[in-house]
Amino acid sequence: MIKLIALYKQPENLKEFDDHYFGTHGPITASIPGLQKMTVTKMTGSPMGGEAAYYLMCEMVYESHESFKMAMKTDEARASGKDLMSFAGDLVTLMIGEEVHG
Amino acid sequence: MIKLIALYKQPENLKEFDDHYFGTHGPITASIPGLQKMTVTKMTGSPMGGEAAYYLMCEMVYESHESFKMAMKTDEARASGKDLMSFAGDLVTLMIGEEVHG
Repeated sequence: MIKLIALYKQPENLKEFDDHYFGTHGPITASIPGLQKMTVTKMTGSPMGGEAAYYLMCEMVYESHESFKMAMKTDEARASGKDLMSFAGDLVTLMIGEEVHG
Repeated sequence: MIKLIALYKQPENLKEFDDHYFGTHGPITASIPGLQKMTVTKMTGSPMGGEAAYYLMCEMVYESHESFKMAMKTDEARASGKDLMSFAGDLVTLMIGEEVHG
């Protein structure tokens, strides 16, 4: 089980970010063939107090490295990547991970 | 549903980190009263190529802000926090979040 993780830094304009993320980017990303589960977490703070290091995290689950690679070649993944760069290219950190406990 | 998220930067010594994390820190943290689920993800890379921005992520789920606050006051949470600072104080970023889709 493979996860693509997107971490978004605090955007300057929260409403603009949320509108685009939940209205456009999320639906495009959710349509990528092979995606098994998508979980979005909004950060509310830090246990040490103050603002969290990131604003939002999206976890996208794929069955295997193979199915993830195939998914990334689809039109939907290309559209998602293009859209991502258009509104959050300077905010996003992308990582690939594997669950080791759960 | 509340999540405490710990992101760990790449440690200098992977074996030492893994030994302590999976042998000591994980078990202490898993024993915190009120913890409903704990998911550990190891990063394997970035879709852009190269090393991931973080090495490991741990997600700890609590029922509510109330139960999270109560959990943080227990001896087990104090022991987990103390242990965390002893081996990864300079590597870890902690955030509190809430799932908005899933």
